[in-house]
Amino acid sequence: MTKIHNFGAGPCILPASVMKEAAKAIVNWNGSGLSILEISHRSSAFEAVVDNTQLLIRELLGVPDSHSVLFLQGGASTQFSMIPMNFLKNRERAAYLDTGHFAQKAIQEARLFGSVEIVGSSREKKHMYIPQIYEPSEGSAYLHLTSNNTIEGTEMFSFPKFGIPLFCDMSSDIFSREINVDDFDFIYAGAQKNLGPAGMTLVIARNSLLDSVKYSVPAMSDYRVFRDNNSMFNTPPVFSIYVAMLNLLWLKKVGGVSEIERLNIEKAKMLYNEIDRNCLFQGCADVRDRSRMNVTFVAKNKDVETAFLKLASSKGMVGISGYRAVGGFRVSLYNALPIESVLALTTLMKEFEKTTLRATPLSLHNL
Amino acid sequence: MTKIHNFGAGPCILPASVMKEAAKAIVNWNGSGLSILEISHRSSAFEAVVDNTQLLIRELLGVPDSHSVLFLQGGASTQFSMIPMNFLKNRERAAYLDTGHFAQKAIQEARLFGSVEIVGSSREKKHMYIPQIYEPSEGSAYLHLTSNNTIEGTEMFSFPKFGIPLFCDMSSDIFSREINVDDFDFIYAGAQKNLGPAGMTLVIARNSLLDSVKYSVPAMSDYRVFRDNNSMFNTPPVFSIYVAMLNLLWLKKVGGVSEIERLNIEKAKMLYNEIDRNCLFQGCADVRDRSRMNVTFVAKNKDVETAFLKLASSKGMVGISGYRAVGGFRVSLYNALPIESVLALTTLMKEFEKTTLRATPLSLHNL
Repeated sequence: MTKIHNFGAGPCILPASVMKEAAKAIVNWNGSGLSILEISHRSSAFEAVVDNTQLLIRELLGVPDSHSVLFLQGGASTQFSMIPMNFLKNRERAAYLDTGHFAQKAIQEARLFGSVEIVGSSREKKHMYIPQIYEPSEGSAYLHLTSNNTIEGTEMFSFPKFGIPLFCDMSSDIFSREINVDDFDFIYAGAQKNLGPAGMTLVIARNSLLDSVKYSVPAMSDYRVFRDNNSMFNTPPVFSIYVAMLNLLWLKKVGGVSEIERLNIEKAKMLYNEIDRNCLFQGCADVRDRSRMNVTFVAKNKDVETAFLKLASSKGMVGISGYRAVGGFRVSLYNALPIESVLALTTLMKEFEKTTLRATPLSLHNL
Repeated sequence: MTKIHNFGAGPCILPASVMKEAAKAIVNWNGSGLSILEISHRSSAFEAVVDNTQLLIRELLGVPDSHSVLFLQGGASTQFSMIPMNFLKNRERAAYLDTGHFAQKAIQEARLFGSVEIVGSSREKKHMYIPQIYEPSEGSAYLHLTSNNTIEGTEMFSFPKFGIPLFCDMSSDIFSREINVDDFDFIYAGAQKNLGPAGMTLVIARNSLLDSVKYSVPAMSDYRVFRDNNSMFNTPPVFSIYVAMLNLLWLKKVGGVSEIERLNIEKAKMLYNEIDRNCLFQGCADVRDRSRMNVTFVAKNKDVETAFLKLASSKGMVGISGYRAVGGFRVSLYNALPIESVLALTTLMKEFEKTTLRATPLSLHNL
């Protein structure tokens, strides 16, 4: 059978060893005679999973004691409204940086709760860069950023300091590189990229910020309820948390975040180099803001695009079509994607260039 | 190794064949070379899983076309607030029947959004029965019921009609018995009993009711957003939905809801008969309202309770301790629990009675 290279944007590839361990746990977890799917979330064995997952996150990201680590449900999309519900008082203003599709979704939800100031936007260039100069007006409740724009293929490599709480959606690049958690007041991420399978949402929030909330919000929208109940006010997504723990153990074993960042830089460089070298392809995002997680590029015409998609698919490469509204290609290089898969893709791009140029040298040279 | 009998209240036992199939899909799903954990929720293969799961629910429960079948996250606890957020206008009143711990949680959340009329309550007897005579005041937005009270061990076997929308939390007995879905306007259930693993929430709602919502609610709190996007506005809990599909296929194969109801009645009868016969144990709930899913009972004194818990544990019986606040025993008899497990328990109860009476005949006879 053809080896499958999974370049999908999420839910995405996880390490093969994690899959194997998860499959074993579904049949018989730790020799208990029970499946991980049928154990009580109130059992001490599962409480240890939650505790261990939190500890691994603290260790791998260097989360300081000032911040809580919480497990929720509903994905980043739920955070888009839960954040303003908690932190944006009526008639108050929050600052948002508009860097793409998901930033805009966050903005849309925040408008239901208060006023939104868009401090910067790259909308006029289809969000293919990260605005560099912006400043929230005085009195903003917080500034909201999206560190990696999954659809557009841009990533922020520096973060501003304005003396107001800094919120960041890190869904698609958390655990892919080192960050200084203390620079942020509130970090959130859907799990289904570098953390684990879909179904859980990670929140890392400064305790003093959580304590500042003065409203009565519903229990399941109250971060303090999750904090005070060790993320088990109600039944948590047991299996997603368990697989996240396995995945974090894998990350620790391969050298932690700094080592995976080194590998991620290498993988991204390999692919961007080929895109820049190959006369049939062209990168979408501004070079300065190119994402290491999601690489967006286009072919020089529609026929070439269709031909390459077909060829790649025949070689077992999946998930490389661009997002519906963007088109072209999007190749995701998450932590668990081996460099061999990137090499297979760049090799194929080279071969494809050769055979394409040989077949129709003139028309293509004229592009 | 001792055979494990899992009487846990949830996340609970699922059929062994479902576990096996789920484990296989984690390593290689349908021969795709990909894990079910790493496939795109936008792939046609996964869209077919969502469609098939919906169809199985429609078929097994007889859901009419007037109702939508939706998959959400956050458990029943999220529905406790999402329902009034959508359906309880400011200063309007909703009617709630207070039948236990979770009904009270639902009441507490509804009070954040409007006024609550408790039309009936069994609180004065620790919720060990279901109030029979109650009537919502005119003009109530809806009546909210809990069909099975997981902690207390009571279940509703008939449902009222008052000409106002009927909402029902069926988390712990949906798919365990036949219901007439058209009698309800809104049914919801956390998955982790008879539907699948924790991480998804089922909503079955009348379309005309959903269309009546006039507010701007956040996207992830808007049932119409889930309906209009086939429950995939954002990344859904892929694995939980997939395992639910496997479990519903199992249910269909063993004869559907009517057949499982017959078996559930048989299992419950077997256990209640032994509780009533055995001089060491006593049922908690009123006989009329005894739940078929969660059987609550106590031992005639604390020493007997401790001794039986220890004995049962040594025989591989797990999950029979009562809920923390209630004490005693709670034995859950969900769909996937084989009758052999109930027989093993009742046999042990009989043996335990014999040896206990032999050891201390006088003191116990005097109880």
